[in-house]
Amino acid sequence: MKTVYNAELIGIGTELLLGKTVNTDARDLSVYLSEIGINVLWHTVVGDNPKRLSDAVEIAKNRADIIITTGGLGPTCDDLTKTILAQSFGLSLEYNEEAAERIRELFKSLDRPMTENNLQQAYLPEKCTVFQNFWGTAPGCAFNENGKIVMMLPGPPRECNAMFKHWGKPYLSSLSGDVIVSHNLHVFGVGESQMEHMLRDEMNRLTNPTLAPYAKEGECFVRVTAKAESEEVAEEMMKPVIEYVYSVLGEYIYGIDCESLEKTAFNLMKEKQVKLATAESCTGGMIASRMTDLAGASGVFCGGVVTYSDKTKAELLGIDPEIIAEKGAVSAEVAELMAKNVRKLLNSDIGISTTGIAGPETDGKNEVGTVFIALATAEKVVVKKMKLGARRDRIRLAAANNAFDFIRRFLSDISI
Amino acid sequence: MKTVYNAELIGIGTELLLGKTVNTDARDLSVYLSEIGINVLWHTVVGDNPKRLSDAVEIAKNRADIIITTGGLGPTCDDLTKTILAQSFGLSLEYNEEAAERIRELFKSLDRPMTENNLQQAYLPEKCTVFQNFWGTAPGCAFNENGKIVMMLPGPPRECNAMFKHWGKPYLSSLSGDVIVSHNLHVFGVGESQMEHMLRDEMNRLTNPTLAPYAKEGECFVRVTAKAESEEVAEEMMKPVIEYVYSVLGEYIYGIDCESLEKTAFNLMKEKQVKLATAESCTGGMIASRMTDLAGASGVFCGGVVTYSDKTKAELLGIDPEIIAEKGAVSAEVAELMAKNVRKLLNSDIGISTTGIAGPETDGKNEVGTVFIALATAEKVVVKKMKLGARRDRIRLAAANNAFDFIRRFLSDISI
Repeated sequence: MKTVYNAELIGIGTELLLGKTVNTDARDLSVYLSEIGINVLWHTVVGDNPKRLSDAVEIAKNRADIIITTGGLGPTCDDLTKTILAQSFGLSLEYNEEAAERIRELFKSLDRPMTENNLQQAYLPEKCTVFQNFWGTAPGCAFNENGKIVMMLPGPPRECNAMFKHWGKPYLSSLSGDVIVSHNLHVFGVGESQMEHMLRDEMNRLTNPTLAPYAKEGECFVRVTAKAESEEVAEEMMKPVIEYVYSVLGEYIYGIDCESLEKTAFNLMKEKQVKLATAESCTGGMIASRMTDLAGASGVFCGGVVTYSDKTKAELLGIDPEIIAEKGAVSAEVAELMAKNVRKLLNSDIGISTTGIAGPETDGKNEVGTVFIALATAEKVVVKKMKLGARRDRIRLAAANNAFDFIRRFLSDISI
Repeated sequence: MKTVYNAELIGIGTELLLGKTVNTDARDLSVYLSEIGINVLWHTVVGDNPKRLSDAVEIAKNRADIIITTGGLGPTCDDLTKTILAQSFGLSLEYNEEAAERIRELFKSLDRPMTENNLQQAYLPEKCTVFQNFWGTAPGCAFNENGKIVMMLPGPPRECNAMFKHWGKPYLSSLSGDVIVSHNLHVFGVGESQMEHMLRDEMNRLTNPTLAPYAKEGECFVRVTAKAESEEVAEEMMKPVIEYVYSVLGEYIYGIDCESLEKTAFNLMKEKQVKLATAESCTGGMIASRMTDLAGASGVFCGGVVTYSDKTKAELLGIDPEIIAEKGAVSAEVAELMAKNVRKLLNSDIGISTTGIAGPETDGKNEVGTVFIALATAEKVVVKKMKLGARRDRIRLAAANNAFDFIRRFLSDISI
């Protein structure tokens, strides 16, 4: 028995090539396949065209052990998948009475007349395992021929997902003994290249587990992946590598396999029963919006103000206009007062504020990208001046990210 | 000169094959390429592996006229795209001082030390057209060699999109003698299938110009595309079609070739010198955040409050707690008071408010998806109860979209 299986996913449908649909089937199947230790090495998309599909199948046969197609199983004349795949493996299509019966029943249950072309869906490659479609109309199938495994799944994401979980996964799980497990260590405050630089020697040295850096909007993460005969063994193998990454990146790691900075801050606040209020100038509501994106936000978030002008800073937060005039709206003093005053106003445990120059215009005192972030509690207030790039959207995103990181650091007893 | 160009998109990145990311670059580029008359016939995805990337490029060379890669241009050792593509076309990599300078400047503006590996990004294939990356770090490029056009774009979707629009589209547009011009008519308040139904006959009848419907998060648009010997002729051809679409969809069209609902609302407010204040409950700052995403927002946006609890609705907006207790925080009465009071509090011309059930929990009175939106001016207040779906993120997005549409309709004298 082979121990490593390489798979190719072929998405079939002109709508994908026109950009009408995004290929989420490939993403979803990739996740499921990696979970059962199958390496997905290629994704291909072709349109509803017999010649190009047939060519794509020939290429896949030459490089992959497993070919999984999505789409092109329906009753319209575009739907060629079964015909081409059967041809390519020298198989004929056979009428499957059980599949036909299910299609007839489906139309009956929908109280809709069934046109004859629907029964085309009941023709399936000889010797295949039929995957009845309990989630839609077109059945799928799988066969093992000339040392290659072929699986055909319907295109609509809901059907594709359900069919794979119900039929595809058990069919393939019997093939491979190994599992692949991975963990993402999420990092904030260090760029991808700097992070890679810090980890490079270990990254190059390791083969199993492996270590790989990834960048994500304004932050990054390191992925540790191990392949072993069981999940437990894989976890054991990863332990020292994860410890090593912690020893190098320490306080910059905000979580393992977690969703986002705001979710980490949210969880810490929930755990410590701490309530937050926000006073936003340059982020303009983004911190509040990201916080309230999370289900259950009302448990930690009181509310906030968006004080986008000097006037509203005075009106809503009672900041002395003379201080604003003297120090400037973008200053450590004003940031401090915003955080302190919003905390008092909304009676929260933490007040967080941002004031900065998101650009393109400046205030004549600070350059674009200058942002002051302050965090206030009943006992103290911390303020930090940061330089967060040159582009409006990045500056705002980075300011909001840093605000969440302030909360994380504060609640984890790490200095800000 | 060829008149039809076939393109292959190669996405490069192990994260795509592990299903950590979905290949939206392929979707976006497919849309853009179809707009300029280039047929996308294949999407391929390979990991960060030199041999498999090189093989994929060989296959693409044999079937496509244009190869566009996305991803693998960064500074980490995974990033192999330029090396492999240059090799495959017998080109060497050359150090590009302008690109290096941009990378150095970027790090300077971020106030972060630049590690040497970042300069690897400044090595580009000889004879190529350099695409400076104003939206990130890694530059892209294009070259025309052995009758094939190769273009390399960065992987992060925002960068890929911006780079294609700024550099890629003009580069490719010069290939074909004909010009293809298209206009997008942005529609809000009608679903894609309903819109398609309304336009179907005309869509099927037309060949040049063409008419095609597209869906986008919570809204949709109709694209009119014409192919002609000059831009002027193409524009003339499209005029009656655009008029036809207006005659059918009328008030639902919020703009042509415009950025977003909030930009349309922003432009109208600017033009009419009207100032906005927001009071957000279920949208939690999203309206303010989207408004302040726009450069120059301070010209129309005073500020806002995020009143995420009953207490803050009383404290910040002075809403009588008895009214909240009697009518419920999610009610027409409270929405009206929020809009009225925030307008007065911040002395703006318009006050807009949202209060609703984003879920997953309900208040026991309203089902998930119920949202009240109110718009207040000095003279009047309009409030509307809406049912906006069942998923938290969709409900919030739809509520914010509707709030911007309220502003657009109000300032365009269209009934809300």
